[in-house]
Amino acid sequence: MGQQSDLQALLNPRAIAVIGATARPGRVGRIIFEQLRRSGFSLYPVNPNESDVLGIPACSAVSALPAGEIDLAVIAIGAEGAVTAAEECARSGIPHIIVVAGGFAEAGPGGKVLEDRLSAIPKITGSRILGPNTLGVFLPHNRLDTLFVEHGDSALARGGGVAFISQSGSVGVEALGLASNTGFGMRAFIGLGNKCDLDEIDFLRHFGEDSGTTCLAFYVESFDRGRDFLEAARGIAARKPVVVLKAGRSGAGASAVSSHTGRLAGSDRVVGGAFRQFGVQRVFDDEALCDAAKTLSVLPVPKGNRVAILTPAGGYGVMAADHVELHHGPGRLEMAVLEPATEARIRAATFPFASCRNPVDLTASANDRMVGDALDALLDDPNTDMVICTAFFAPPSITDRMVEEIAGRAENSAKPVIVFTQYGPFTDDYLRRFHRHGVVGFPSVGRAVRAARFLAERASILKNTEAAP
Amino acid sequence: MGQQSDLQALLNPRAIAVIGATARPGRVGRIIFEQLRRSGFSLYPVNPNESDVLGIPACSAVSALPAGEIDLAVIAIGAEGAVTAAEECARSGIPHIIVVAGGFAEAGPGGKVLEDRLSAIPKITGSRILGPNTLGVFLPHNRLDTLFVEHGDSALARGGGVAFISQSGSVGVEALGLASNTGFGMRAFIGLGNKCDLDEIDFLRHFGEDSGTTCLAFYVESFDRGRDFLEAARGIAARKPVVVLKAGRSGAGASAVSSHTGRLAGSDRVVGGAFRQFGVQRVFDDEALCDAAKTLSVLPVPKGNRVAILTPAGGYGVMAADHVELHHGPGRLEMAVLEPATEARIRAATFPFASCRNPVDLTASANDRMVGDALDALLDDPNTDMVICTAFFAPPSITDRMVEEIAGRAENSAKPVIVFTQYGPFTDDYLRRFHRHGVVGFPSVGRAVRAARFLAERASILKNTEAAP
Repeated sequence: MGQQSDLQALLNPRAIAVIGATARPGRVGRIIFEQLRRSGFSLYPVNPNESDVLGIPACSAVSALPAGEIDLAVIAIGAEGAVTAAEECARSGIPHIIVVAGGFAEAGPGGKVLEDRLSAIPKITGSRILGPNTLGVFLPHNRLDTLFVEHGDSALARGGGVAFISQSGSVGVEALGLASNTGFGMRAFIGLGNKCDLDEIDFLRHFGEDSGTTCLAFYVESFDRGRDFLEAARGIAARKPVVVLKAGRSGAGASAVSSHTGRLAGSDRVVGGAFRQFGVQRVFDDEALCDAAKTLSVLPVPKGNRVAILTPAGGYGVMAADHVELHHGPGRLEMAVLEPATEARIRAATFPFASCRNPVDLTASANDRMVGDALDALLDDPNTDMVICTAFFAPPSITDRMVEEIAGRAENSAKPVIVFTQYGPFTDDYLRRFHRHGVVGFPSVGRAVRAARFLAERASILKNTEAAP
Repeated sequence: MGQQSDLQALLNPRAIAVIGATARPGRVGRIIFEQLRRSGFSLYPVNPNESDVLGIPACSAVSALPAGEIDLAVIAIGAEGAVTAAEECARSGIPHIIVVAGGFAEAGPGGKVLEDRLSAIPKITGSRILGPNTLGVFLPHNRLDTLFVEHGDSALARGGGVAFISQSGSVGVEALGLASNTGFGMRAFIGLGNKCDLDEIDFLRHFGEDSGTTCLAFYVESFDRGRDFLEAARGIAARKPVVVLKAGRSGAGASAVSSHTGRLAGSDRVVGGAFRQFGVQRVFDDEALCDAAKTLSVLPVPKGNRVAILTPAGGYGVMAADHVELHHGPGRLEMAVLEPATEARIRAATFPFASCRNPVDLTASANDRMVGDALDALLDDPNTDMVICTAFFAPPSITDRMVEEIAGRAENSAKPVIVFTQYGPFTDDYLRRFHRHGVVGFPSVGRAVRAARFLAERASILKNTEAAP
């Protein structure tokens, strides 16, 4: 740990060895091997018991792999064998190794001895190790995928900007599911596992420099080099958002972290204070982490924290205003005070009986065009920094075309627009349609307002950065 | 207001007059008329310009309706005409009237004059009015449906126990959408609208006595008779849960309430203190209201607040423990301390390397049966009051059958089981499957833990009730 690392060969390998590749159905070594073959990577299966794996000739041992050709070894066998294989890979000069198996420090003293052997490898040989106890990596843009669990249709995940780095495989898989469902575009998923070598700082630095990454999202249970992480994050946060979910905050949570990864969780209070100082945005659960990543990876940063609310349903205007005004943590919002000209413009475009003060309530008589026109008026008002728009499809004059109305106006504005769309059987379909148009939407008013807070917090971080010497 | 009311004829009418019933497509008067006809009610359309409406002969005026036969008049014409029609209905002795139109107190001084005329009717005639500015009512069990907006497939809404009473039509429609999607069973939806006569107290009393109702959920922006509501709620809350979302808590929210319904919102602080004293459970947004209704209408009340967490994914155990321990409001939870025998039983049923202290982490090697056996062990432990179970389908040995494993064990226990299931393209399908088995599930760990808090709060309300003289 702590040494400089070029992760290019890990994340964009030319040739990959899969130790434990097998034709036996259901095995992790088969799932990973098949995925990589489908993606077109140049592959070297290693298996002493199978002469070829799914048509590709196998090497009987790591020592039989062609010298100097392999960028990455994925080791898909049990803990004991994996350590020996990793030692052999390192001796063969393979620069990057992913160890998938669990049964290391998280499993007790015996596992800790095995993990210590793994940790020694990078120090002696210079090869870098990701894991053990990790799902590995998934990069939609080059189809590098070592994840051995179902993670949904990656179509929507393609082409996105979120680098999602997770100490927990399952939290990462959930994020992938969300991304593929109604979610956000993924640049990379990295499962850190037990972090015997590569850790959150290595990937923070890598994706901080990666031009395709627009937002870094971390799920971390323990920081071994907390100060280094924050120092590195400060420089990156000046250019792109860094969001962190630090789990294991409570006594029981911290004790569970110890069982989960064999580490101790840091003091929650120390972590909390430091994050803000270094420009890191903190969230408290998986839903918030994914929502923040979705919002911050796509929307422009607002100039300030003044939010306008547009709705064809009075109740949601009331609740949104409550959410805006009653939260006083980071990313505090203010209700924008609209120009009289804006109110007049909205009234002229809609009804005499529309409520044109913020929150603007067009009533259930609104139609698609009126929602679009009112949105335009709010975006043009010099007193607004962003707009939360309720996309409510129940009113009789509202149609599916409202999606395009809203998307068209949002596209032409430098101010962020966040959509809230109702629950019900069509919610996910509408969220997907908004997503395809580049519009960020959420299925509850509370989450839409929280997304606005993420943006306000980001705006405040950038202001502090510019103000710093 | 304040007079005694029997709402049977409103909510279970034998014959209904629809004023403004029409064959003209897209009109509210057609939507409502068609729905009621489909449901098989005995109908009397009133329309001076159409001799019959969709094959049913129309009356030319309210005065032409058969005397003494009509239980309910639904008035689906504009504000001015609606007032006159309501006066005529009352004079004809029709006991219940729903006024759908907006354009009353919420629209300014002219509308206020019209609404005052409506308010006078019950005092003079004894007829009761629901509305104006309301979506009306929807009761899945007898198919009475005057809602004129899309509200999803009601199949799942049928047979449930939630009476959802909402001052906002749109919040109600969202709840119906949720109910029909992955949600909860609905006993009734009531849109209160401007509450010129019937208000939340009338329906609190009615559904408090209704044996088919297992939970009452209110969205209210303003209480006109706050003390009466609380007094009535106290008696009912001793028998079934009463949950209230009081919107308009902030300055901007309260001001928006005024535009929305023409009422002033009460002081938030006064409301908050009083609720707890009277056994009313308070929530702060629509998502929480629906989640509380779903949980409290179905699950048994736990004996206490000690929660066990079961997961095949360590990260979620850590986050759930954080959520359990770091919240200190009403419904505070405690992590259950398991009996050594329970830990041994789980280990014996699973793996030597499973983490068998609470939160119990079976690891991604778990299979369906192991999840079920561990759940049984946790439910049998005398130190647990309820269990939150992560239903995570990504691990290779977990299959769809886990739904039935969990449902079967939950069914046989007197302790509540709450499921958290992952995001992703299949989340809603799984939530629906759990729902069909009577299992309450949520798509985020935070919402699952919050549901446990609703139950703990309910347990504490019942304890206080029993302790009271």
